[in-house]
Amino acid sequence: MMYSPKIAILGAGSWGTALAVHLGRAGRDCVLWGRDPLLLEQIGMLRENPKYLPGISIPENVQLTSSLKEAVSKRDIILIVVPSHGFRSIVTELNNLMCKTDKENAAFVSCTKGVENGTLYFMTEVIEDVLGIEVSKKVAVLSGPSFAKEVAQGLPTAVTVASKDSTLAAQLQDVFSYGTFRVYTTDDVRGVEVGGAVKNVLAIAVGISDGMGLGLNARAALITRGLREIVRLGMNLGASPLTFAGLSGLGDLVLTCTGDLSRNRQVGLRLGKGEDINSILSSMNMVAEGVKTSRALYDLGVRTQTDMPISMAVYQVLYEGIKPDEAVTSLIERPLRPEWE
Amino acid sequence: MMYSPKIAILGAGSWGTALAVHLGRAGRDCVLWGRDPLLLEQIGMLRENPKYLPGISIPENVQLTSSLKEAVSKRDIILIVVPSHGFRSIVTELNNLMCKTDKENAAFVSCTKGVENGTLYFMTEVIEDVLGIEVSKKVAVLSGPSFAKEVAQGLPTAVTVASKDSTLAAQLQDVFSYGTFRVYTTDDVRGVEVGGAVKNVLAIAVGISDGMGLGLNARAALITRGLREIVRLGMNLGASPLTFAGLSGLGDLVLTCTGDLSRNRQVGLRLGKGEDINSILSSMNMVAEGVKTSRALYDLGVRTQTDMPISMAVYQVLYEGIKPDEAVTSLIERPLRPEWE
Repeated sequence: MMYSPKIAILGAGSWGTALAVHLGRAGRDCVLWGRDPLLLEQIGMLRENPKYLPGISIPENVQLTSSLKEAVSKRDIILIVVPSHGFRSIVTELNNLMCKTDKENAAFVSCTKGVENGTLYFMTEVIEDVLGIEVSKKVAVLSGPSFAKEVAQGLPTAVTVASKDSTLAAQLQDVFSYGTFRVYTTDDVRGVEVGGAVKNVLAIAVGISDGMGLGLNARAALITRGLREIVRLGMNLGASPLTFAGLSGLGDLVLTCTGDLSRNRQVGLRLGKGEDINSILSSMNMVAEGVKTSRALYDLGVRTQTDMPISMAVYQVLYEGIKPDEAVTSLIERPLRPEWE
Repeated sequence: MMYSPKIAILGAGSWGTALAVHLGRAGRDCVLWGRDPLLLEQIGMLRENPKYLPGISIPENVQLTSSLKEAVSKRDIILIVVPSHGFRSIVTELNNLMCKTDKENAAFVSCTKGVENGTLYFMTEVIEDVLGIEVSKKVAVLSGPSFAKEVAQGLPTAVTVASKDSTLAAQLQDVFSYGTFRVYTTDDVRGVEVGGAVKNVLAIAVGISDGMGLGLNARAALITRGLREIVRLGMNLGASPLTFAGLSGLGDLVLTCTGDLSRNRQVGLRLGKGEDINSILSSMNMVAEGVKTSRALYDLGVRTQTDMPISMAVYQVLYEGIKPDEAVTSLIERPLRPEWE
């Protein structure tokens, strides 16, 4: 018999909704949960998410609920698709409301990129910490270059699923692969998480460079030398350097740094044009993920003694009042070296 | 005493001219050679290259000549900056007109990206073949993400110099590094050459995808999986995988695939929009480098038994009458795998 798991998607933002649309089209048994009952009701009536993914029709077989308990009851796969700052609280809720059997049977898949401030935990570490599951079992990460809107439009997309549990990784590959959506597998959970988190900080660096009008050579150099920093940090955290040359590393970095106007890039562009960080942040409804990650990354860099000049420069511009042109000058005036040491 | 070599720059196209401008600003003793005496005379009068780099002033200390013999006489460093199909003939001329002492004293630096059709030689192999110099001695490659115009404008740029001769690599690093132009060194000559050649073929692939409207996720996936092909081929040719994560690999690939409207990308875009390859090529004055490289790469792939599905798909579209949508479908329908095998 074909493996046909019951799937819960927690988070009705643009990425959660796009994953629900995709899995619905693939004929999967899935339920989309969002915290806001009014939004969920709207989605149910319109069969689209007017707030986060307007214009995309949600297949009829995607169930909807604003009850978390209902969403995760008797589910085989639980996708967590909430912002990183809300990750611990939702996992804590799961821990409290899921029965032992459900908890033991379910696989937990993080679709969230970031590092928890304070603890400096990646998302699977938060799962481990709260649910008491070993990361080697029934825990996975889905990551890669994937604008939600394009996935929802059915455009070709390739992502990585990482799990120490190779059976789970293969199952997820099978469950998600449909149409032009391709899934590759790896066992390097930490590598995939590091790539997903750091790219948001580098997107700010590239935004600054573009805002200052430094050109495309500079952008390509920043992406390349930035990836080098991801590799150094990742290796210090036990990841494989190969992972960063893959979809969740390089692929997502290229997408974020060249392809979009994410909040991270916007922050950088405005900094590069001379605007003050406080005025930028106060004019935005939400804090850009990379602004928070920059602080956690600074702490991780110090703790692991990793040389990360670009990430550090972003931190100094965001938190220490260094001007973007001073930061650029300090990067350019570093001693000349071999490319790989 | 400071090392102050005499430099010849062979080729007055946009890249050769930009290197002359940069070295002139750095106060280097350099001469720019071009084959066309009329163009050289114009450049001398205007102190700019109206054909290939208009609007950029060439410093007074850059000498100009259309005599190859004069250009390379008693020079310490000879930069070869001609298209790949003209590379062998210029090296052959050098071999004939340089005296033994000059040949022995000079270092030869390839600034040309490509593979020689037929022989499947990279440019340093052509140097070795014609001049009889071992590549381990006095031969180097300069490569990386560097639009000529931006270098000439003094915008930040980082490149790689590769040589088996570490003293030469360090000298070239010193000679070229000036202002916001940064040079990193490596000993992986072959790796740097493979990256420079293959990226032009992948730029056609990305152009096809963009021309078909496949979106940014697909572009990021093509760049990432395309880099994987560069790595596989490079490793089969004895290069280090690390090199491809650097400026001459990833950096140049990202620049070429996202940043410009090179002829390679144009060919791809027009193919993706449904135009016939013959009508595209007949409407262009010059053959795009990637179109030639695609054939050589196909041969290299066969010879080294390297799995390169994206490069092969480009070859099939260019030379075997496969339609772009058939090529895309065949890529998408490949069996699902781990990301790294």
